[in-house]
Amino acid sequence: MESITVYDIAREANVSVATVSRVLNDTAPVRTSTRQKIMAIIEKHKFQPNALARSLVNKKTGMIGVLFPDSSNMFFPEVFGGAERAAMKLGFTLFLCNTFSNFSRESEYLNLLCERQVEGLIFMGGRINSRHCPELLVQEVVDIQKRIPIVLINGSLPGHPCHRVKTDEYAGTQLIMQHLIDRGHRSIGFLGGSAETTTTMEKLQAYKSTLGANDLPFRKQIVRLGDFSMECGRKLMDQLLSMPNCPTAFLCINDYVAIGAMKAAISHGLRIPEDIAIAGFDDTQLAAAMNPELTTVSQHSEELGSQAMALLSRLIQKEKVKKLTVLEPKLIVRQST
Amino acid sequence: MESITVYDIAREANVSVATVSRVLNDTAPVRTSTRQKIMAIIEKHKFQPNALARSLVNKKTGMIGVLFPDSSNMFFPEVFGGAERAAMKLGFTLFLCNTFSNFSRESEYLNLLCERQVEGLIFMGGRINSRHCPELLVQEVVDIQKRIPIVLINGSLPGHPCHRVKTDEYAGTQLIMQHLIDRGHRSIGFLGGSAETTTTMEKLQAYKSTLGANDLPFRKQIVRLGDFSMECGRKLMDQLLSMPNCPTAFLCINDYVAIGAMKAAISHGLRIPEDIAIAGFDDTQLAAAMNPELTTVSQHSEELGSQAMALLSRLIQKEKVKKLTVLEPKLIVRQST
Repeated sequence: MESITVYDIAREANVSVATVSRVLNDTAPVRTSTRQKIMAIIEKHKFQPNALARSLVNKKTGMIGVLFPDSSNMFFPEVFGGAERAAMKLGFTLFLCNTFSNFSRESEYLNLLCERQVEGLIFMGGRINSRHCPELLVQEVVDIQKRIPIVLINGSLPGHPCHRVKTDEYAGTQLIMQHLIDRGHRSIGFLGGSAETTTTMEKLQAYKSTLGANDLPFRKQIVRLGDFSMECGRKLMDQLLSMPNCPTAFLCINDYVAIGAMKAAISHGLRIPEDIAIAGFDDTQLAAAMNPELTTVSQHSEELGSQAMALLSRLIQKEKVKKLTVLEPKLIVRQST
Repeated sequence: MESITVYDIAREANVSVATVSRVLNDTAPVRTSTRQKIMAIIEKHKFQPNALARSLVNKKTGMIGVLFPDSSNMFFPEVFGGAERAAMKLGFTLFLCNTFSNFSRESEYLNLLCERQVEGLIFMGGRINSRHCPELLVQEVVDIQKRIPIVLINGSLPGHPCHRVKTDEYAGTQLIMQHLIDRGHRSIGFLGGSAETTTTMEKLQAYKSTLGANDLPFRKQIVRLGDFSMECGRKLMDQLLSMPNCPTAFLCINDYVAIGAMKAAISHGLRIPEDIAIAGFDDTQLAAAMNPELTTVSQHSEELGSQAMALLSRLIQKEKVKKLTVLEPKLIVRQST
């Protein structure tokens, strides 16, 4: 199982490590007889031209770390898929780390990825979406950024300039709210998300402003936060359906919450969209799979990933790149509204 | 952006690389004054104790490569999630490579992962499930296995002993077939999968044998292969619904095909399960999300991943491990049957 290193080859050939490295990387001429001796040893031991050893010489690893909050929400594997396709074309390899949005796991992985000498980082979720992130954790990322290019997806580090790719979730929320209002709904509930998360607050602001722009009142009691899960959608919808003035439509923080809400509505004997309209966010593959199919907002998940990777590649090549790339969201009208 | 290496530190401290390495890895005593000089340089340059350099000395990288066919089928992120949680506990880091079941991408990644000096490999999909895999591609994996431990999930390399973790898909198919038969169905269609894939043929064999064991005829015209997508399920169900003797129940190769089949049935005005029963396979998160919720077979996706990782860790430590680990599938009865 043990493989030999450049050190072993150098010893066996009775040459310096530098000479072995020159042969491996073809960076400088080496006497033919020496080269042949080294090649024979490499052949004999089936030596893998060692990317690690090479990276010590070139200071390049071709590796990109991806911090990513949750592989069980399809949105994130979709973003990752886009980043991966772009990375493959650009000659990079991605190193996926599932942080479960846990700050200390994030720190652990950041440390590990720096140790692994990644050439760049893509960061999603966790602290970059946190409204009350301790300054120490922000500083940790800022410090790494001095040495390694970082691109944030759908997040930011307040007070520190960063390279960011995001979908305009504010505009996306306006789009879907206006769609519900245009369908005649006057009372629209807001379900799921967390008050600790910047993206939730952004969507909530857009929800309020669209109500205002249409002369509709904001009613606190039909805004119910929680988390981002199907279970949360089910529970919150159950609560609201037992209220006297239950809304006729619901905007959910994401597709998962929307599906939970649909399930609760169906189990109460309601028809979607005839009795109640429900809309999601993200346009994950779940949305089109549902019955009825879910109206939602596309964040262009794959493109978020591929754009972040393209940007990072340019940063690694020390090109000047604008700080913020914004993708326009797209309303996807299906059967649930 | 450039970071310094052990070589740079050795030069600046006027000591050998080996001495720097001894300080970094704490593997042998070093004179206190020398140690302090080296530590000061490390501090000055904010040197990252370099996992790459260390790995050259220790011959250990802590890295595991995971070859994985498709991040857009939730089954695979679920397996990966299980492997990742186990890896984290065991002190390994996973390196996820999406092969899209493409043989040449697999080769490309295998090469890259060996170059990166991974300590082990987890292999899913692609050639290890192919019925007509060129011997050269089998040999490629067999050769790597001589140097690096490999665990295959739900697959094999015919003619070559390998360490494998699998769910008994044959038994799983028998379970769900018997369930459909016990519900009174006498004509059960088989939808999706590919004749090129070993797992499809295994399920098809179990389908036939369960029909036989219940004195039911095997009818070739209600077995329709294709691929593993929702679109395939929709198309095949459309075809079968226009047949004269359409089956009353359908076993689908996976949850995605089952969801496509449900959509087609609903658009034909059929009620599930009253008019037609539909069953999936895998118990991905989609199954419970559907309306009606999908009856399916759990492969214990997370456990497949965690068991594979635990096995690999033991192989890396050169422990004796039995070649084959089989998980028992579990029938999950929901609303669609």
